[in-house]
Amino acid sequence: MADHELKVQLLLTGNEIMSGDTVDSNSALIARRLAELAITVHRKVTVGDDIELLQAELAAMADDADLLIVNGGLGPTIDDLTAEVLARVTGVDTEEHPRALAHLQDWCGRRRLTLNAANRKQAMLPAGADIIDNPIGSAVGFEMMVGKCRVICTPGVPGELAAMLDIIIADLARRTERPLERSILRLQTFGLGESTAQQMISDGIGDWPGEVELGFRAGAPQMEIKLSINSAGAMAARQRCREQLEQLFGDHIIGEGDMTLAARVLDLLRERGATLTTAESCTGGLIASMLTRIPGSSDSFHAGFVTYANSIKHAVLGVDEQVLAREGAVSEPVVRQMALGAMERSGADYAIAVSGIAGPDGGTPDKPVGTVWLAWGSRDELHSCCLRWPVERTLFQTMVAAAGLDMIRRVLLGLDTEPRYFSQRRV
Amino acid sequence: MADHELKVQLLLTGNEIMSGDTVDSNSALIARRLAELAITVHRKVTVGDDIELLQAELAAMADDADLLIVNGGLGPTIDDLTAEVLARVTGVDTEEHPRALAHLQDWCGRRRLTLNAANRKQAMLPAGADIIDNPIGSAVGFEMMVGKCRVICTPGVPGELAAMLDIIIADLARRTERPLERSILRLQTFGLGESTAQQMISDGIGDWPGEVELGFRAGAPQMEIKLSINSAGAMAARQRCREQLEQLFGDHIIGEGDMTLAARVLDLLRERGATLTTAESCTGGLIASMLTRIPGSSDSFHAGFVTYANSIKHAVLGVDEQVLAREGAVSEPVVRQMALGAMERSGADYAIAVSGIAGPDGGTPDKPVGTVWLAWGSRDELHSCCLRWPVERTLFQTMVAAAGLDMIRRVLLGLDTEPRYFSQRRV
Repeated sequence: MADHELKVQLLLTGNEIMSGDTVDSNSALIARRLAELAITVHRKVTVGDDIELLQAELAAMADDADLLIVNGGLGPTIDDLTAEVLARVTGVDTEEHPRALAHLQDWCGRRRLTLNAANRKQAMLPAGADIIDNPIGSAVGFEMMVGKCRVICTPGVPGELAAMLDIIIADLARRTERPLERSILRLQTFGLGESTAQQMISDGIGDWPGEVELGFRAGAPQMEIKLSINSAGAMAARQRCREQLEQLFGDHIIGEGDMTLAARVLDLLRERGATLTTAESCTGGLIASMLTRIPGSSDSFHAGFVTYANSIKHAVLGVDEQVLAREGAVSEPVVRQMALGAMERSGADYAIAVSGIAGPDGGTPDKPVGTVWLAWGSRDELHSCCLRWPVERTLFQTMVAAAGLDMIRRVLLGLDTEPRYFSQRRV
Repeated sequence: MADHELKVQLLLTGNEIMSGDTVDSNSALIARRLAELAITVHRKVTVGDDIELLQAELAAMADDADLLIVNGGLGPTIDDLTAEVLARVTGVDTEEHPRALAHLQDWCGRRRLTLNAANRKQAMLPAGADIIDNPIGSAVGFEMMVGKCRVICTPGVPGELAAMLDIIIADLARRTERPLERSILRLQTFGLGESTAQQMISDGIGDWPGEVELGFRAGAPQMEIKLSINSAGAMAARQRCREQLEQLFGDHIIGEGDMTLAARVLDLLRERGATLTTAESCTGGLIASMLTRIPGSSDSFHAGFVTYANSIKHAVLGVDEQVLAREGAVSEPVVRQMALGAMERSGADYAIAVSGIAGPDGGTPDKPVGTVWLAWGSRDELHSCCLRWPVERTLFQTMVAAAGLDMIRRVLLGLDTEPRYFSQRRV
């Protein structure tokens, strides 16, 4: 079978997806992973946990596709129907698979749980199905042929799906004889919007090669730029594109792949043998949390302070009470004193301090919701500025936390350029 | 037409959704809005911007459904195909609709834009289609009958869709004579797994009524239990189910709707005029961040401490250095001193303190990765315990942070029962 003829469909199941209680991100993940092999998804169908509907849909899709990936319905509850449905469509019974049972026993054992009847149901699979390991969760995946279509059944829990996709994609690369070199290069940026980036590329790069597909994924706080190629022959062209993008976006590029601002900052601190502390008001611990999610963060991050109330800014960080009263908590002298106080209390070399108005309440005509003062740097070289990010509370917290990390990244890299977002956000 | 017979399907179009570059949240929004009328979505199909594929799909779906909502493909670019596809399926031509054109002229005028050819394309609609206003964007929606199926075409831009859905849902409520009451009850729980909950219900509630549909959504850290009914007549049955669930799960139920542990704790603190502080080691600011995401958290949460390093536990919270050296950071006396120190430094009435090993490194035979000491309560009544949660780092942080909040919730409620997860997790 020629690669480009592979017709792939997705069948998603789950009442929580149909009801809209859960936004389906699994199908996007599957599509992005398949894209690494230059495989595109042709069609996607979603139905609730209804056995008749699932059966009709699975049979029709398997009839039409070469590869059908089913997602969801592998769990222990009565509304998890995928194994039963696949058994019906292929005309076999479900039976207890020894390897699936062993996996379940091992999984429960490591968690000191007793294997109950509900769990045990997850080992009941269609007779003749091949098992796909689940490196994280209790339910194994499985696959079998339905006519000429290969049907792969995967778990709905996103982390479990992601882990299992590593196995499935590697296997698919082998079967379809596609090179498992990554055909996709992802660059992580902070401080660029999608339309700005698009416009800068249109204006700045006249001769974009046709064999390199350009994509954007705008997230919060980062935006990903994606360069995809369909053949190894396009590698050189992609490398040229990358160099042009690096020239265009410069220090707005944080790194490659899954790099985050927090991980980059921790890497830079580790290289320099330096430590960082945080003094957070409006971000309320989010900067500390972004740092400490990363394994090994304890090397460079020893202490963080969440000083929400004015009295605490004084008592814990030593911010001058008269300055607080005169200038207000959202002010340059306060945020600078917070940074200095945090460095003094913790002994850290660098600090990020933020104080702002996350909303929805608390704004004034002078300092509306979305206003934030940041201070960052070392005792000897402490910077500060006021930005305005008039967005919803949690998005505001996310963007401000990221901006603080970005500014420390710039200090650690010795950059003296201002990021582009300063020109839009600066008050 | 009787209410429960309304068969609704969704057709989504867009290459960016198929490729996984955009996660589709529109279909979840549509489903949630329909749920307000106790209308459930039966089936959902997603395809790329391919005219043949769209035409075949739309025709087949309209043949099967009573109501088909199409989302996407209304924009100005050549890959926006919905109007053309609907015209083909109904066998009419597209023509310029005066009302759609007037809307576009007005929209451009207010933005001081000239109406260009690309924009003008958005007024070309199937002959005979009825227009649905777009309160925000340039492209109007439209609807027409395809055989016995009502087909409604909506924009892919989320904000525009949301605004248009207000109109569509109000119209649908009128047509179907449904009261605009919610048919879905959601209960939030912490400390129960999906399989445990399912097993407890199977064992504990023998006579579950057929007209109340039971669903679970296992998230991290909370699990949602959902009770859905399709007619107002089932209200009483649902209420009985709710009471049975409350008896069964008791204080593992945090609240209704979108209630979170952090919001519940903040509500309880506010009712009592009390304040809370946090002393976090392995959760690294996550508890503080969960609290401060909630608007108004500053009423009851004034200060949090992230004390990652031992030296900081001593310097900032006054933990005894000899105790640290003798017992180690992950120990009962240390976590109790952290809680007391945080209350003393902040003046708060209650504290949560955690110290554990999030991994992947740092475990020992005595204290493997996943071990955590928690302390919670007030100066007068401080509790502590050691739990083991041997899961991946960020999930460990999430579950431990939630457990801390859950224990404070229990103290504030005056509960003296132990949560079920203690029996499994306690070391």
